Amino acid sequence: MAKPKTPKPAVFDDPNYLTGVVDLLGVLCYGEISACERLAEDAKMAPDLKTKVEIAAMATAEFGHFTKLRDRLVELDVDPYEAMKPFTATFERFHKQTAPADYLEGLVKAYVGDGLASDFYREIAAYLDENTRELVLDTLSGTGHSKFVIEQVRGAIRENPRVGGRLALWGRRLMGEALSQAQRVIAEHDALSSVLVGSVDRPGMDLAGIGRMFTRITEAHTKRMEKLGLAA
Amino acid sequence: MAKPKTPKPAVFDDPNYLTGVVDLLGVLCYGEISACERLAEDAKMAPDLKTKVEIAAMATAEFGHFTKLRDRLVELDVDPYEAMKPFTATFERFHKQTAPADYLEGLVKAYVGDGLASDFYREIAAYLDENTRELVLDTLSGTGHSKFVIEQVRGAIRENPRVGGRLALWGRRLMGEALSQAQRVIAEHDALSSVLVGSVDRPGMDLAGIGRMFTRITEAHTKRMEKLGLAA
Repeated sequence: MAKPKTPKPAVFDDPNYLTGVVDLLGVLCYGEISACERLAEDAKMAPDLKTKVEIAAMATAEFGHFTKLRDRLVELDVDPYEAMKPFTATFERFHKQTAPADYLEGLVKAYVGDGLASDFYREIAAYLDENTRELVLDTLSGTGHSKFVIEQVRGAIRENPRVGGRLALWGRRLMGEALSQAQRVIAEHDALSSVLVGSVDRPGMDLAGIGRMFTRITEAHTKRMEKLGLAA
Repeated sequence: MAKPKTPKPAVFDDPNYLTGVVDLLGVLCYGEISACERLAEDAKMAPDLKTKVEIAAMATAEFGHFTKLRDRLVELDVDPYEAMKPFTATFERFHKQTAPADYLEGLVKAYVGDGLASDFYREIAAYLDENTRELVLDTLSGTGHSKFVIEQVRGAIRENPRVGGRLALWGRRLMGEALSQAQRVIAEHDALSSVLVGSVDRPGMDLAGIGRMFTRITEAHTKRMEKLGLAA
């Protein structure tokens, strides 16, 4: 028996909204699979098997998120690989600009990246129909490995305080790259940004609201860096 | 609340049996994590994102098996990473000798390797206590991606029949390497082989039985190669 489809709410009658949601799911989806891929790559730099396994567990969690998002795109009668295509270059660029030099940089990247993505999509979720919102929030429930990352990073700084300075700079670079890529994605995808700013029937954020959103995201980033024992 | 432990059956009072089971779980466990790692690496050679995702799904399934085996070792009050250590060199050697040249070789390796491992551990399972047997059989339930591999390999051969000859040779090499590493593991780990051959209280296989087991495994391999459209 075929799995029953999630019903499409009326809001999908607005073709612009549908395009925006497909873009959003596409960008999330490719973000997860590329994060999974990069973590699998970073795992190779792990100093021991146990750490490698923890990083692989994070990669596996990202893959689980990916499959949920992909399956929803299929439910929306969209080819998920087509939906992801417009965003592949962005992520490849981001990952190329932020290739970790060692496993600690890899862990900080996963932690900071997951956090930023999570904050950003949570903000957007408020403007989505209920089904899509639930899926997005569920996907962002986190890979549940923050504790491991915090312990590893704090431990490494205790052993060698200079590591803290290097990783703090690294965190700033990650934040800068992420923001610049996010802005580019929004600028290049009108339907996606219209999910955020709304339409006549669907009120969204105004420009001042978008400004405040970025302030909130930046503040949350600072707190995350502090948890790692790093200056933001 | 702590998770209730699986009870240790009386057979574990035999320290040699316990050592053998820990060895068995250790070798299975490292086999899964190294298969996961190699698949993640092979995924990079995929010709498109969809194929890459299918290979990543196989890697994720191996990781799921790994965590079950690791958790059982923890339940047995054994450091899983110590239990895996004696077998890392074997798998690294195997993977070094059988590095796929392209994603098709990677798929055949995953399919043939999973199949061989599955057959071999299923044979051993008959000589295990019930709890360990269930875990081992559960772990070997397969990654459920055979259909994808069969389609890909048959499709590639249809497009270019010469691929069939190359992959058939590759399958033979994989089989040879796997058997030679398996023999080495058994020769080097007395407790592990005694799980198979038994003790006074626990009857096992005799030499003729072991011979017949290898015949069965070789026959199953031949059938698997045929399913891929390859001569064994």
